[in-house]
Amino acid sequence: PSSEASNQGKSGADVKVQESKDIVVTSEDGITKIMFNRPPKKNAITFQMYQDIILALKNASTDNSAITVFTGAGDYYCSGNDLTNFTSASGGMEKAAEGGAVLLREFVNSFIDFPKPLVAVVNGPAVGISVTLLGLFDAVYASDKATFHTPFSHLGQSPEACSSYTFPKIMGSAKATEMLLFGKKLTAREACAQGLVTEVFPDSTFKKEIWTRLKAYAKLPPNSMRISKQLIRKNEKEKLHAVNAEECSTLKERWLSEECINAIMSFLSRKSKL
Amino acid sequence: PSSEASNQGKSGADVKVQESKDIVVTSEDGITKIMFNRPPKKNAITFQMYQDIILALKNASTDNSAITVFTGAGDYYCSGNDLTNFTSASGGMEKAAEGGAVLLREFVNSFIDFPKPLVAVVNGPAVGISVTLLGLFDAVYASDKATFHTPFSHLGQSPEACSSYTFPKIMGSAKATEMLLFGKKLTAREACAQGLVTEVFPDSTFKKEIWTRLKAYAKLPPNSMRISKQLIRKNEKEKLHAVNAEECSTLKERWLSEECINAIMSFLSRKSKL
Amino acid sequence: PSSEASNQGKSGADVKVQESKDIVVTSEDGITKIMFNRPPKKNAITFQMYQDIILALKNASTDNSAITVFTGAGDYYCSGNDLTNFTSASGGMEKAAEGGAVLLREFVNSFIDFPKPLVAVVNGPAVGISVTLLGLFDAVYASDKATFHTPFSHLGQSPEACSSYTFPKIMGSAKATEMLLFGKKLTAREACAQGLVTEVFPDSTFKKEIWTRLKAYAKLPPNSMRISKQLIRKNEKEKLHAVNAEECSTLKERWLSEECINAIMSFLSRKSKL
Repeated sequence: PSSEASNQGKSGADVKVQESKDIVVTSEDGITKIMFNRPPKKNAITFQMYQDIILALKNASTDNSAITVFTGAGDYYCSGNDLTNFTSASGGMEKAAEGGAVLLREFVNSFIDFPKPLVAVVNGPAVGISVTLLGLFDAVYASDKATFHTPFSHLGQSPEACSSYTFPKIMGSAKATEMLLFGKKLTAREACAQGLVTEVFPDSTFKKEIWTRLKAYAKLPPNSMRISKQLIRKNEKEKLHAVNAEECSTLKERWLSEECINAIMSFLSRKSKL
Repeated sequence: PSSEASNQGKSGADVKVQESKDIVVTSEDGITKIMFNRPPKKNAITFQMYQDIILALKNASTDNSAITVFTGAGDYYCSGNDLTNFTSASGGMEKAAEGGAVLLREFVNSFIDFPKPLVAVVNGPAVGISVTLLGLFDAVYASDKATFHTPFSHLGQSPEACSSYTFPKIMGSAKATEMLLFGKKLTAREACAQGLVTEVFPDSTFKKEIWTRLKAYAKLPPNSMRISKQLIRKNEKEKLHAVNAEECSTLKERWLSEECINAIMSFLSRKSKL
Repeated sequence: PSSEASNQGKSGADVKVQESKDIVVTSEDGITKIMFNRPPKKNAITFQMYQDIILALKNASTDNSAITVFTGAGDYYCSGNDLTNFTSASGGMEKAAEGGAVLLREFVNSFIDFPKPLVAVVNGPAVGISVTLLGLFDAVYASDKATFHTPFSHLGQSPEACSSYTFPKIMGSAKATEMLLFGKKLTAREACAQGLVTEVFPDSTFKKEIWTRLKAYAKLPPNSMRISKQLIRKNEKEKLHAVNAEECSTLKERWLSEECINAIMSFLSRKSKL
């Protein structure tokens, strides 16, 4: 149990707090920043990056920061799961699907259980799991260049990161299903109107405005923010864990289905021809 | 258990698949279309039509279509429950109310349990149960000539089709109650802003645009869509069945109340004088 | 159990039905009106006012009105909990916090359990608990001069009146948390776009338009409205009571924390210097 004093978020230099190839973690002004940093691949998430993020969240939950922020390096926020994760897995397909489902579940759990305010600074296009995870964030600020796209059906897959529960809750079934089942891509303004995004900013002033605001928020009484967040999360934490388990189990089956294998092969083949 | 192949939605001719006087069911391009077809009565739903729709949904759940679409013939989408259902029922009033509640519950259950994506193409005004059912659809596209009206209190009745649960979830209590308790009529754009409608189109291009889009959606991997929908629905299926039972039980009592009988008599008497 | 006849909302003169210094209760045209009436203190709520409102709701639940309306006298709707409640409490701090939590819980319960349509006519700025309570109302009409502000973290406190549950449900987590954790103040139009407010009116015509509308609503069949409201509320009444208990218990601890004591002292000291 931490004392009041231990969480007062002492401001310090912008120190890199975790060594990782494609995830950069820094902490400054009461804010721990976790950045997707793989611009040549549009910040697509590799197996290693999932593990690095789990570790980063674990560290951030007990460091002296008041809030934790995700953002992306370069033009993209994050293009989602790196589909070569499927082809690069060693062992049989069953084993790979099993391992993927276990990792995904642990990854999403680390967002469900994260104890401090969690903010997304969406600097550009977001795809797949980087979109569905937003339903577990406490605030989502977006550049007007950001888009939100979950083409699960196109890839023979199904929703993850509790979006089968959070998206209908946030935007109602009629809007949620168009995204999750039919793969409708939203602009930042549409995502804001539907409650997935807190506020949209012109790209030219986005970073300046949002970091000024976040630094002010990080100075609020940290225990109040942490306790209030946990009060809100408590209302559905059990449900979120159950949904996560169900979604991962469904996805494991999907990954072994003909529809999914064909769709991914076709996607990678189209890409390699470009 | 259906195999992957059996659901691949083989495109065929637009064949009428069910004989029924006031409900027309056709299947083409991977889409099963269920049309309210009683334009002289603004597509008001008779006892027979409730039964025809239950059967149509049963058939559509196992046919080779990928998605199922409801729409209306003529100017109206559907004017709701035909109020002459009340006066034309044989047997005593208690028996009629009991029978009505049993049929309503089965009718709504067939929407709760429908296993594939369910889309409403709202071509004009929608009233009563044709509005409340929309909370159980996966996408709702509306012409800008559509309106959404649930005058339950005016008729001495109470909400049905799980709207006492879905409407507050979709639009928040402050908007939902104005519709369900005070009978506020919404325009298509208002219904869209509040999440009941997915998207609104100008009436002049509505049908063309929407069927082009739906045909594209119907070509997506059908098992992914079906499994994703069931993943979403699973989160609240038990709750929806409980709400449906409670609503039908409440309505049965309402139908026998002085308020309701007076309101319906007054409505039918005004109408007969026109 | 009331008969149909006993609730028919007989219209009568605008009679003051409860004697109270800072809460004025009147009943007319089928509407019971509960008004915050402490303009020199921006209608901040004292311990006595909490008790007066509990009594007023108890009386309104069985009087012959069809709907109950809250509004504020003067420029403010209500500036929330009077912070001098903390300093004026007799006995030790532990005892004062305990007493405050018991009173708050009973106060919020009287809104959760209120059996008739409950409407807020928000004539000006609303702060703190007068905002969070709105999630328990059936309709919220606002002047365009109204604002909505919940600076809990700034005061070292945490959300109450079930807002940790109702706000994420109404507006989605990304919008709710910005209000509840970061204290973002909303304009009336923003609150309406996010579903907290039903409709916004120009201040110049607000009162005329809204009372005309409410008088029409109050003439609808009262049992239908009451039964429909209870049908909607039943879906989450148990959850709301559990959330209220949890929030009050959390707040009691917050009130004894260093963060909260320092924040309130600082607020009152700034105020006394003005």
